[in-house]
Amino acid sequence: MTGAHFADRLATAVEAKQSRVCVGLDPTADRLPPNVRQQAEAEVGPGPQAAAHALWLFNRALLDAVAPYAVAVKPQSAYYEMHGWPGIAALERTIAYARSAGLLCILDGKRNDIASTAEAYAQAYLADGPLGCDALTVNPYLGSDGIRPFVAACAAHGRGLFVLVKTSNPSSDELQDLVLEGSPLWLGFGRVLHERVAALVSEWGADHLGSCGYSSVGAVVGGTHPDAVARLRERLPHTWFLVPGFGAQGAGSQEVAAAFDGNGRGAIVNSSRGIIFAYQATDLSRAYAPQEFAEAAAEAARVMRDEINAALA
Amino acid sequence: MTGAHFADRLATAVEAKQSRVCVGLDPTADRLPPNVRQQAEAEVGPGPQAAAHALWLFNRALLDAVAPYAVAVKPQSAYYEMHGWPGIAALERTIAYARSAGLLCILDGKRNDIASTAEAYAQAYLADGPLGCDALTVNPYLGSDGIRPFVAACAAHGRGLFVLVKTSNPSSDELQDLVLEGSPLWLGFGRVLHERVAALVSEWGADHLGSCGYSSVGAVVGGTHPDAVARLRERLPHTWFLVPGFGAQGAGSQEVAAAFDGNGRGAIVNSSRGIIFAYQATDLSRAYAPQEFAEAAAEAARVMRDEINAALA
Repeated sequence: MTGAHFADRLATAVEAKQSRVCVGLDPTADRLPPNVRQQAEAEVGPGPQAAAHALWLFNRALLDAVAPYAVAVKPQSAYYEMHGWPGIAALERTIAYARSAGLLCILDGKRNDIASTAEAYAQAYLADGPLGCDALTVNPYLGSDGIRPFVAACAAHGRGLFVLVKTSNPSSDELQDLVLEGSPLWLGFGRVLHERVAALVSEWGADHLGSCGYSSVGAVVGGTHPDAVARLRERLPHTWFLVPGFGAQGAGSQEVAAAFDGNGRGAIVNSSRGIIFAYQATDLSRAYAPQEFAEAAAEAARVMRDEINAALA
Repeated sequence: MTGAHFADRLATAVEAKQSRVCVGLDPTADRLPPNVRQQAEAEVGPGPQAAAHALWLFNRALLDAVAPYAVAVKPQSAYYEMHGWPGIAALERTIAYARSAGLLCILDGKRNDIASTAEAYAQAYLADGPLGCDALTVNPYLGSDGIRPFVAACAAHGRGLFVLVKTSNPSSDELQDLVLEGSPLWLGFGRVLHERVAALVSEWGADHLGSCGYSSVGAVVGGTHPDAVARLRERLPHTWFLVPGFGAQGAGSQEVAAAFDGNGRGAIVNSSRGIIFAYQATDLSRAYAPQEFAEAAAEAARVMRDEINAALA
C-alpha cells in the first residue's frame, strides 16, 4: 500500500473502517500505568532505557486495542525525543507496528527548515528509512521552498503532509489571525494570515490530487475554532484536514463536524490524552483498572468514532 | 557554567575568544571524507549504524579543530534524525563533546507545538537530559503559549532560545514579509509579519535579561537580508541574533556586520557547509586532502572569524 497515493489510502481506510478517528500517542511518563513501567523494568532493567521501553510496551497494547476503531495514529515526536536515542528507538518500533496493524501513522513533528534541510527531514520521515511514516506535520513559516521538498517526497513515496494552518491552542490567534493588507493573490480566501497559509496549502497540493479528489498536502485545523474550520472547509475542497483539539482540549463532535465535506469525508479528528489515558476517565461504561488501559482506550476510541459518525448522519 | 545565564555565557565566550563564529554541524553523508566512513565501518561494522557513527567521528574531529576559533556549534537535527536512533545517539555524543570542549551547543531543531508539548521539547533540549543543549531554535507560528514553556526552561536551567524571525531562504518573504494592517500593539516596529514576531521576541525576553544586557530569548535573522538585519538590530537592542546564511547561502562579512551592536556584540554568525566541508573548497591557503578535513575546517573558521572581526573594526 505504501506506493499508493496517501489521500486515497486515507479515504479507503475511512470507508473501510467507517471511522474518522486518529489516536494521538503522547505518552507522558508520569501517566503510564504502573504495570507497564514494571514490565519495562523487568525486560530491560531499571534506568533511562526502561522509561523509553515502557513507551513502546504501552503503545503496542494501545495499537492492538484501537486498530478496529481508528484509521490513524499520531505519535507526538516530543514525547519520544525527551528520552534521547532509546525514545527514538521506541518511536521506530511504534511506527512500524502501527503500519503493520493497518493503521496510518502520522508523525506529529511540526518540522520546518530551508530547502536542503527540509529534504533531509523528508528523507527521514517520508521515505523508507527507520522513521518512515505515512505522513508528517509541518510548519509553513519559511514559505514554499521549505515545503516543496516534503511535497516531492510525498509524490515519490505515496506519503502525505499536514501543514499547520490554524492550530488548536489558545494563542494561535496572535500570529495566525493577524489581518493582512488586501491582495489579489488569495482571492476567495479571507484576509488573515492563516487563510493566506491555506491558499498556499491549496497551491502546494494542486498537482497532487489522488483519485478520491483530495490531495496529499493536508492541513492542521484546530477543532477548538469551529468557525475557522467551517470557512476553511469551504475554501479547501481538495484538502484533508487533521483536526486536533478533540476531548482534553475542549472540542466535541458538534464542533468538529464542520471539518467534513457533504459526504462525511475530508477530515480525521485526533484525540490523544482522552483515549490513551481513558483508564483514568470517569465517563466510560465502567471503571477500568490501570492494567486495563488498552480496553479503556478501545472503548474511548469506539465511542469517539460513533459520536463523530452520529454528528455527521 | 550551565547554571549561569545563557546570554552572559555567550557574551563571555565572544569576549574571551574574540570570535562571533558558529559552526553548523550539518553532515550530509555523501560529502563525508571517505576515511571517516571507513573508520566508522572498522569500528562498528558495515550497515546503517556505521553511517550514524561516521557523523560522530566527523564531528569529534571538527570540534577539536574549530574550538579555538568558534564560540558555538549548531547541529542541524534533521541530519541526525534521518539515521534513526543511531543518528540521535551520534547527536547526543556530539552535544556532550561540544560542551566539554568549551563550545556552546545550539540545536537547530526549529521546534514548535502547543504548551504541553512545548514543555516536553523544552525538557528534551533545555534541561539536563541526554540531548540537553545550551540553546534551541524554535518556530513562533503558534504564538506565546507555545513559546513560554521554552522560556521557562531557559530561566530554570541557564539555557537560551533563538526564535525564527526572518529566515535566510529565498521564499522567506512569502509569509514573513506580508504587510499587516496597522496596530498600536507593535508601535516602533514595522508593519510586516516578521517585525510583529520580533516585537513578540522582545516581549518574551523582557524579563530574562542577563547582566550583559541581552536576554536569553534570541532571534534567527538571515544574513541574506541585510536591510532586515539592520532594522531588527535597531529595534531589538536586548536580543542576541543567530545569523545563518553566511558562506554557501551567499552572505559575506559586510552583509552580516549590521547584526552587531556598536560594540561588536549581540550576534553570532553561522556557517555550515563552508566550514565543515572546507576540504572541498578552492579558496583556502592550500589544497587539503579529504583526510585533512579538520585542518581545512579550522582554517575556514579562523578566516571567517577574522573577516567578521575586520568588518566590525
